[in-house]
Amino acid sequence: MAQIQSYSNLDQGQFDKLVSQDFPFIISDCNFGSCLQKWNAEYLSSKLNGSSVKVHVSEEPVLNFLTKNFRYETQNFGEFLQKCAHPDGDQQYLYLRSIGVDKRGRDVADIQKHFPQIADDLVMPPFANFCTDIDCEEEGTTKCTKRHLFSSVFRISSKELVVWTHYDMVDNILLQVKGEKRVTLFPPSDAPFLYIRGDKSEIADLDQENIEAEYPLFSQATRLDCHLGEGDAIFIPALWFHTTKALQFSIGVNFFWKDRQLAAFYNRTDVYGNKDLIPAADAYSNVDKALKHLSKLPPKYRQFYLHMIIARLNKELTE
Amino acid sequence: MAQIQSYSNLDQGQFDKLVSQDFPFIISDCNFGSCLQKWNAEYLSSKLNGSSVKVHVSEEPVLNFLTKNFRYETQNFGEFLQKCAHPDGDQQYLYLRSIGVDKRGRDVADIQKHFPQIADDLVMPPFANFCTDIDCEEEGTTKCTKRHLFSSVFRISSKELVVWTHYDMVDNILLQVKGEKRVTLFPPSDAPFLYIRGDKSEIADLDQENIEAEYPLFSQATRLDCHLGEGDAIFIPALWFHTTKALQFSIGVNFFWKDRQLAAFYNRTDVYGNKDLIPAADAYSNVDKALKHLSKLPPKYRQFYLHMIIARLNKELTE
Repeated sequence: MAQIQSYSNLDQGQFDKLVSQDFPFIISDCNFGSCLQKWNAEYLSSKLNGSSVKVHVSEEPVLNFLTKNFRYETQNFGEFLQKCAHPDGDQQYLYLRSIGVDKRGRDVADIQKHFPQIADDLVMPPFANFCTDIDCEEEGTTKCTKRHLFSSVFRISSKELVVWTHYDMVDNILLQVKGEKRVTLFPPSDAPFLYIRGDKSEIADLDQENIEAEYPLFSQATRLDCHLGEGDAIFIPALWFHTTKALQFSIGVNFFWKDRQLAAFYNRTDVYGNKDLIPAADAYSNVDKALKHLSKLPPKYRQFYLHMIIARLNKELTE
Repeated sequence: MAQIQSYSNLDQGQFDKLVSQDFPFIISDCNFGSCLQKWNAEYLSSKLNGSSVKVHVSEEPVLNFLTKNFRYETQNFGEFLQKCAHPDGDQQYLYLRSIGVDKRGRDVADIQKHFPQIADDLVMPPFANFCTDIDCEEEGTTKCTKRHLFSSVFRISSKELVVWTHYDMVDNILLQVKGEKRVTLFPPSDAPFLYIRGDKSEIADLDQENIEAEYPLFSQATRLDCHLGEGDAIFIPALWFHTTKALQFSIGVNFFWKDRQLAAFYNRTDVYGNKDLIPAADAYSNVDKALKHLSKLPPKYRQFYLHMIIARLNKELTE
């Protein structure tokens, strides 16, 4: 498989062409605005100290969503930043993934709306051609061909923090504003080798020795690692499995956008951009029913029919 | 994988133990009764000349159920036997698989009932411990622990005739009365490699050169060949894929029986013993629905979710 390429001075046409190839790429030395010079723990504290944020807190650097080795805490933004950037001896690992403010979790993360105090520091990358009309009525039609932002997400984390391997239903670019980050990606076709439960991998720590002892299929996966410095951005296509490791105290921002072609299929209650497309959720539900039927049978017959169904689906894959 | 073993002088206990291992085996030099001495085209013609039979007729020796390179003809039993045993220059390949006489196809093949003129020539193998009460009311209960015959099937074929590779839902023993036969088997776990459609393989001719060019997965299958002589029987377990080739004009008989454990799951309209168990048919129907849902999605997403579902089913297989 190809490696992840890095580009600079991308224009809109080049970006569109690269995005259409459905393969991750880095855009180096972008101009995201004054945030690149301004943002650090002290500056953001001074601007956002009044607000509170819900953050992940763990005693371990590798967060595991499936075993839940972390808890959620609501903290003062300033105190969170201080602990995150300047850990004391009693090490805790902290991670903010900003979310909407609706208590029932029905709105999406939006930096402009939720953090207006620092919104002007951040400039949307021009190559990504986002529509500036946040209420654009022609979204999803062919009249407005710009990208429409689904969400913009703050990502702030302690040094060493690793976010679980997962996939999203929507494309995004991750801008690295402060600190350095390692991004590890796997193509969608690696689904069979990554022990996926829901949208997350059971393999929490990709740096553990001898992963194959516990996860034998992992040796068949195609791991792509890359490195983001300050001012770099990476395109992470929908369905690509990915995980990040903060090599330093890290501030980043994601911009997510939906694919017009899939407008009818997105789950409307999805604020994270990771819920399965409606026809896929329906398909899963039918597979659940199929398994329930097979569970009535003795193991020999159950296994036989599992083989038969897998063979059928494999045939569909090659057609 | 083990090879197919051959046993002689089996008693009931030995047979039961071997059957429970779900692996084919040969019982050599059995006593099936006087049919071994008596049955040939001339004898059967003299006894059965009045009756008519529905037979497969083809210009090719390798019958292909999926492409249907044969037709069904109703023939006088005596004339059929004559053409089958003594082909003239205008070679046709003929094959009888006896069936029930109900016009709507609702009863099963039963040699005793449908061919009483020769029924006494055939002795049920004592080791198989069949219940002699054909109306046994304790069938399927623990009160009668004998095997209950599901069907008994006449198999008469021209030299060289090959019957398509398929599996049955019920166990059977095939008695070879006249002529020699090659039997080829594959374990149920070979389903992914045999290009199965329904209960039949798309690979019509296992003797064709370079099968893998057309069917690349076939190289992963475990082919087991064995040879039946006159007076030999073979146990063919349910779900094992199998095909036969008559090395000479051939007369055989199958005895099929159902598994008491599955009594609730057999399809009651199944007269051939090859319809899928009810929970399996229900599971297939749910898989059809799942595929229909996925077909709404663009190829990239459809393929991704196929991978995800296959991974899930593979996990079920190993649990």
